[in-house]
Amino acid sequence: MDFLEEPIPGVGTYDDFNTIDWVREKSRDRDRHREITNKSKESTWALIHSVSDAFSGWLLMLLIGLLSGSLAGLIDISAHWMTDLKEGICTGGFWFNHEHCCWNSEHVTFEDRDKCPEWNSWSQLIINTDEGAFAYIVNYFMYVLWALLFAFLAVSLVKVFAPYACGSGIPEIKTILSGFIIRGYLGKWTLVIKTITLVLAVSSGLSLGKEGPLVHVACCCGNILCHCFNKYRKNEAKRREVLSAAAAAGVSVAFGAPIGGVLFSLEEVSYYFPLKTLWRSFFAALVAAFTLRSINPFGNSRLVLFYVEFHTPWHLFELVPFILLGIFGGLWGALFIRTNIAWCRKRKTTQLGKYPVIEVLIVTAITAILAFPNEYTRMSTSELISELFNDCGLLDSSKLCDYENRFNTSKGGELPDRPAGVGVYSAMWQLALTLILKIVITIFTFGMKIPSGLFIPSMAVGAIAGRLLGVGMEQLAYYHHDWTIFNSWCSQGADCITPGLYAMVGAAACLGGVTRMTVSLVVIMFELTGGLEYIVPLMAAAMTSKWVADALGREGIYDAHIRLNGYPFLEAKEEFAHKTLAMDVMKPRRNDPLLTVLTQDSMTVEDVETIISETTYSGFPVVVSRESQRLVGFVLRRDLIISIENARKKQDGVVSTSIIYFTEHSPPMPPYTPPTLKLRNILDLSPFTVTDLTPMEIVVDIFRKLGLRQCLVTHNGRLLGIITKKDVLKHIAQMANQDPDSILFN
Amino acid sequence: MDFLEEPIPGVGTYDDFNTIDWVREKSRDRDRHREITNKSKESTWALIHSVSDAFSGWLLMLLIGLLSGSLAGLIDISAHWMTDLKEGICTGGFWFNHEHCCWNSEHVTFEDRDKCPEWNSWSQLIINTDEGAFAYIVNYFMYVLWALLFAFLAVSLVKVFAPYACGSGIPEIKTILSGFIIRGYLGKWTLVIKTITLVLAVSSGLSLGKEGPLVHVACCCGNILCHCFNKYRKNEAKRREVLSAAAAAGVSVAFGAPIGGVLFSLEEVSYYFPLKTLWRSFFAALVAAFTLRSINPFGNSRLVLFYVEFHTPWHLFELVPFILLGIFGGLWGALFIRTNIAWCRKRKTTQLGKYPVIEVLIVTAITAILAFPNEYTRMSTSELISELFNDCGLLDSSKLCDYENRFNTSKGGELPDRPAGVGVYSAMWQLALTLILKIVITIFTFGMKIPSGLFIPSMAVGAIAGRLLGVGMEQLAYYHHDWTIFNSWCSQGADCITPGLYAMVGAAACLGGVTRMTVSLVVIMFELTGGLEYIVPLMAAAMTSKWVADALGREGIYDAHIRLNGYPFLEAKEEFAHKTLAMDVMKPRRNDPLLTVLTQDSMTVEDVETIISETTYSGFPVVVSRESQRLVGFVLRRDLIISIENARKKQDGVVSTSIIYFTEHSPPMPPYTPPTLKLRNILDLSPFTVTDLTPMEIVVDIFRKLGLRQCLVTHNGRLLGIITKKDVLKHIAQMANQDPDSILFN
Repeated sequence: MDFLEEPIPGVGTYDDFNTIDWVREKSRDRDRHREITNKSKESTWALIHSVSDAFSGWLLMLLIGLLSGSLAGLIDISAHWMTDLKEGICTGGFWFNHEHCCWNSEHVTFEDRDKCPEWNSWSQLIINTDEGAFAYIVNYFMYVLWALLFAFLAVSLVKVFAPYACGSGIPEIKTILSGFIIRGYLGKWTLVIKTITLVLAVSSGLSLGKEGPLVHVACCCGNILCHCFNKYRKNEAKRREVLSAAAAAGVSVAFGAPIGGVLFSLEEVSYYFPLKTLWRSFFAALVAAFTLRSINPFGNSRLVLFYVEFHTPWHLFELVPFILLGIFGGLWGALFIRTNIAWCRKRKTTQLGKYPVIEVLIVTAITAILAFPNEYTRMSTSELISELFNDCGLLDSSKLCDYENRFNTSKGGELPDRPAGVGVYSAMWQLALTLILKIVITIFTFGMKIPSGLFIPSMAVGAIAGRLLGVGMEQLAYYHHDWTIFNSWCSQGADCITPGLYAMVGAAACLGGVTRMTVSLVVIMFELTGGLEYIVPLMAAAMTSKWVADALGREGIYDAHIRLNGYPFLEAKEEFAHKTLAMDVMKPRRNDPLLTVLTQDSMTVEDVETIISETTYSGFPVVVSRESQRLVGFVLRRDLIISIENARKKQDGVVSTSIIYFTEHSPPMPPYTPPTLKLRNILDLSPFTVTDLTPMEIVVDIFRKLGLRQCLVTHNGRLLGIITKKDVLKHIAQMANQDPDSILFN
Repeated sequence: MDFLEEPIPGVGTYDDFNTIDWVREKSRDRDRHREITNKSKESTWALIHSVSDAFSGWLLMLLIGLLSGSLAGLIDISAHWMTDLKEGICTGGFWFNHEHCCWNSEHVTFEDRDKCPEWNSWSQLIINTDEGAFAYIVNYFMYVLWALLFAFLAVSLVKVFAPYACGSGIPEIKTILSGFIIRGYLGKWTLVIKTITLVLAVSSGLSLGKEGPLVHVACCCGNILCHCFNKYRKNEAKRREVLSAAAAAGVSVAFGAPIGGVLFSLEEVSYYFPLKTLWRSFFAALVAAFTLRSINPFGNSRLVLFYVEFHTPWHLFELVPFILLGIFGGLWGALFIRTNIAWCRKRKTTQLGKYPVIEVLIVTAITAILAFPNEYTRMSTSELISELFNDCGLLDSSKLCDYENRFNTSKGGELPDRPAGVGVYSAMWQLALTLILKIVITIFTFGMKIPSGLFIPSMAVGAIAGRLLGVGMEQLAYYHHDWTIFNSWCSQGADCITPGLYAMVGAAACLGGVTRMTVSLVVIMFELTGGLEYIVPLMAAAMTSKWVADALGREGIYDAHIRLNGYPFLEAKEEFAHKTLAMDVMKPRRNDPLLTVLTQDSMTVEDVETIISETTYSGFPVVVSRESQRLVGFVLRRDLIISIENARKKQDGVVSTSIIYFTEHSPPMPPYTPPTLKLRNILDLSPFTVTDLTPMEIVVDIFRKLGLRQCLVTHNGRLLGIITKKDVLKHIAQMANQDPDSILFN
C-alpha cells in the first residue's frame, strides 16, 4: 500500500485515546523518505525539496528553542512581577517589580537595596503607613486577597478553556511519547492557557513550581510547530521525536541546564530516543537556553536558576551527613508519593473532585494565611532555595548569615566557621516551621486543577533540611573541633563546613526521592555549580535517596500518576520478572469462544459487518481458512470500517453479498454475481507472531522495543490467539498484585 | 530448560568468532535472578546472597573505576618519563622526568624553569656540552635511537605475546558489545601487553594517542573483573553491560570528562545500553576520574588533560571562521578515513602485512628524523595541543606568545590584541610544517601493529589549523579594525580575538570529522572548559564537520575499520532505506534445494547426524512434518552435537536407529525397539518468525533491537526459509554496492 497517496482518507490514522503502531508509522516515514530521495534525482526542484526536507528537522529545533526560550523568559518576568504585586506596587511605574523599581530609584543605598520610596507596600498606599499592627493586618489581608484572586483566575481559566492545562503534564507527556494519542493535550489552547495560568499559579504563592509545567509548555510549542512541516505533521512517530527534543528544551530553560535537560528527556520522559534525536535535542536545548539568557529575566546574565558560587572543598567524613540527607530524601519521596496518590485517588472517587475551584481556593487561603507571618514561606520558593544554597559572604545581610564575629576573616580571606548569632537561631526555627508547612501543603497542592510542578517544592524541602543539618554540623564542628572526627581536618578558625552545600545535596536527594531521576539529576546539579567538586556528594545523596525510596515503593511520582489515570504506559525500566507464557496472557482464554477471524476469500461484506458490529476488537486476523487457521495478515477495525463504507459509497455495485478478498488476485467470477471488494491494500501482511510457549518476558520486551499494539500467538504454525498492549499491561498489573482493571485505554 | 542446572556442559555457550543470542542470554539472566529472589525468602543466608547479588554490579563498577583510573595514572606517568628520556636524563634520580627533575632542583628560576643543572641532555652526558653542531647531532641521534628502541620493543611485544593489543581497539570493542565473541581480545595478556606497549608507543614519538587504547585497557579491566562475579562471568549479555560502563570509564580517564565518557559510550560504542547501565557507567566513570586525580599524574591536581582557563567572550561574526574550521575538519576526516582505509587494505592484501616490525621501525625512523628539528613536532602531541589551546598570558615565554608590546595591558588588565612579533611568525611557519607532517604520517601510523589512538593526532591537526586561523584573524582584526566586519565590536586596544579558542574549535572539528561523534564530543570539550560560553562555537564546528564528512562518506573511522575486518556489526544509526522484502533475503533462494529441517518425532539419530555432517548451518528448524512445514521450534547445531554425543556416551542404549523426539511426550514404544532420545530441553520453543512479505527495514529493525542471530520466515503459516544476521549484513552490503563477501563471520 502506498501511504503517500492515501487512497482513502482516514485509513492509517488513529482514534483519540488509542495507541499508535510504531512499526507502521516508521515504515510510512521511510516510504516517504524513499519517495523524496528517488524523486530528488529527477529535477533540481525535487533536489531542493529533498535537501529542505532533510534540514527541516534542524529548522524545527531552532524554532522550538526560540519559542520555548522566549515563553520561559516571559513567564519568569511576569511571575516575578505578580509575586511582588502581592506585597505592593511601584509608583515609578506599575510594571516594575520590587527589584527593578528600586534599581531605578536614586534614593537607595547598597545596604537598604530593598527599600526605596518608589516601592509602596499596600498599607502605605491605603493607610499611608508601613508601621504598626494595623498596617501589618492590611498587608496580610492584601496578600491573602491577591493570592486568592490569582488562584481563582488560574483555576477558572483552566476549567473553562483548557482542562488539559492542569498539573505538571509530565505523566501525560510520558504516555504520549510512549505512543498514546490524547488530542488537544499539546494544542494551542492548552499552550496559551497553561502559560497564563502558570504565571497566576506561581504568583499565588501556592507550594508549586513552574519547572514541570515548562516541559509541557515546550512540548506544546513543539507540537504546534510540527504543523508547519509535512514530515512531522503527518507522522505520529516522527512527531514524538520532536516532542522528546522539546521536553529537553523545557528542562533546559527551567534550570538553565541544557545537558541535564537532554539527559532528563532521555532518562525520564522519552520512549523512543534514537541518537539522531539526542543530537537534535541537544541543539534545541542549547538554543532555548541561550534565548532565555538573552532575555535575561533574572537580571544577572546568568543562565541558571540557582547559581552557586562557592568552591570550598568538602571532606570525606561529610559523606555521612550527605548520606543521611539521601535517606531523608528517599523517605520524603516515598511518603510524598503514597500520600499524594492516596489524596488524588480520593479526589477522583469522591465528591471532592467535583469542586475544583473551591478546593483550590481553600488550599490557597490556608497556604497564604500560614505563609505570610513567616518570611521564609512568604518569599517565593525559588528565592528561598537560592538563599539556602548561598554561602554566607561578608556582605550578606540575611538572617541566615547573622553569625557572631561576622566580619572576621581568616588569613586566606575566606570566612571561617563561626558561632551562630541570634539571627541564625531564629532563622532555624522559622525554617523548621517552613519545612513542616511545605511537606504538608505540597501533598495537597500537587494534582489540583491548576498548573503545578513538583521540582521546586521538593527541592525546597530538601534544601531546608540540608541547611538545618549543615548549620548544625557547622556549629558542632565549631564547638567541638577537638573531637576525633573533626580534629584531623577542621581546625579552629578554618572554613571547613559549607551549609549551602548541604542545602544543595538535600535538594538533590529530595528531588531524586520523588522523581527517581539519577544521571540527569546529578548533571542538572552539576551544571548549577559548573564544577566537578561536588559531584561525589550529589551522587552519594542521589543514590541513597533512590535506593531508600525504591525499597519503599518502586514507582516515581510520574509513573504513579500514570497508573492512577489508567494510561497504557509500558515502563521501559522495569524488568518483567515472572515466569508466565504467552498462552497464559493471550485472548481467547481457555474456556472462551474461539478467536474471531476473517477468512481471506470466503466472507461477504455482510459477514464482516456482522462481525464488526458484534465485537469491539480493534483488529482482526485474516486466515487462509477457518479449518487450517493459517495466518495471512491482520486488518484494523478502523481501516476495515472506513474501507467498506467508502466502497459502498463510491465503488459501483458493492452490496452486502459481495465477497471480500484479501488475496492478491481474486478468481474470475461467474457472471451475475455482485462485484467483489478487494481489500489487500489495508491488510498488514507482516503481523508479528510469537509461539504460545514464548515466555512473557520476551513478549514484553518485543512490545517495548518495537512499540507494538498487538501480537498474534501461534501453536505449531496455527493461529491460536492474540495479545494486545492492554493485555500485557493488565497482566503486568495482575502480577504486581495491582488491579488489572485500572488500565483503561487500548 | 533450567539453565541454572546446566545439565550438559557446553550447551548454551558459544564458539569463538560467533554472534551471541541476546534474547537467550537475557532470558537466562532473568531465570537466574528469579531463582535467587525466590530462594531469598527461604533463609537468611539466601537473603544475604540475594542482596549481595544485587549490589555486586555496583561493587564491580567501583573496582573497574579504581583499576582503570590507576592504570591510566601509571600510563601517564611512565609515558611522561619515557618521552623525556629521549632527550636526556635526570642525574638527581633517573626516575624523575624533566619537569620533576627541575622542581626538585634548587638552582632554578621561574623564567628558566626548564633548565636546571640536574637535567642532562644526552650530549651533556656523552660529550659534556650542549652547544654546537656536534652536540645537536648527538642529541638528534639519541632521540632517533630511543624512538626506534621503544617502537621495536612495542611491536615485538605485541607480535609475540598479544596480537590483539594493537590498534585502538574501539572497532573491535564496538563489535564485541554488539554481541560478537572474540576470545582473548579482552583477556589479561592483552591488558598487560597493551598497557606496556601503549607507554612504549606513545614515548616513541609516533603520531598516535593513548586515549583510544585507554578505552580498550578499561574494557580489559572490566572483562577480567567480571570473572570475580558469577552473575557477569556466565552471562554474555550482562558482561556486555559491564563493558559499556568500562568504556565510559576509559574515556573518562582519557580526557578527565566523566559525563562525556558516559555519552561517548552511549553514542559511539555501546549497542545495548539500558538506563540502569547509564547510571552505573556514570558511577564507574566518576570513580575512575577521581582515582586518576588522586594519583595526580599531571602534577596540577587537575582532572582534565587540556585545561582551558580563558573565559573571554566571542562575537557572533566569529561563527564564520568557526564554520570554516568545521569544513576543514570534515574534509580532513573524510580524507583521513579514505586514505587510511586504502592503506590498511593494502597492508592486508599485499606483502606489506607480513613485516609489521620493519614497517613500524621505518615509520618510527621517518617520524623521529623529521620531528626532531622542529620543536612543535619534537614535543609530545598532547603538550603541543595544550600549548595551542592556551591563551597568551603576561608571563608566557612560548614563541607563540611573542607579540610586540608584550607587557602592555589594557585598562581592564587583560591583554589587548597586539601585532605579532618575530617569534609568532616563525612559530606559524613551524606549525604549518607540523600540520603537513601530522596529516601525512598519521595516515600511515594508525593501523600498524602497535597500540595507537586517533583522538590526539586528530585533535592536533585541528588545533594547529585553528591556531593558524586564529592568529590570522587576530592580526587581521588588529591591522584592519576599521573594516565593517570588525568595527562594531573590535576596537583598537581591545582583546577581541582569542586564538586559543580557535585551536579548541579546530580540534573539536577534526575529531568530529574522523569519529563522527556529536553530543559526546561537545560535552567532552565542554568539560575541558567548565563553562557554557564556548558551547555554541563548538557545536557549530562539530555540526558542520559532521555534515561535510558525511557528505563525502557515511562511515566514521571505527565503522570503516569494522567493515575492513569483516566483523558482523549491525549499525544501529543507519536506517535501512531499501524496499526489499524478507523473501528476497531468506535462504534457501528461489532455485536452491529446500530448507533443511528436522521433524519433531520421526528422525533417527543417524538421520540427524547425516544432516549435521552434510551441512554447515549453525541451527535447524524443527517442524511437525515435512509435508505440513508447521514450525515447532529451532535447535542450534552446537547444542545438538553436544547432546547427541553426550547421549551416546552416557545414556544407555542410544544407538544410531534411536528416534529423536522433540515433542513433550514420546509415544509408548513397542518392545525391542532402541530407546528414544528426548531433546525437547535443547529446543528453542519460541523462535522468532516473520512473514515472507515483511519489508526488510522491519526485519533489520527486529534484528537490531532484539539482538537476534536468526529469524525464520513463513508464508501463510508454513515455514519457508531462514534469515541469519550474516544474511542481513550481506544484504545491507549488497544494497550499498559493497562486496557482500566482506562479511566474514556468523
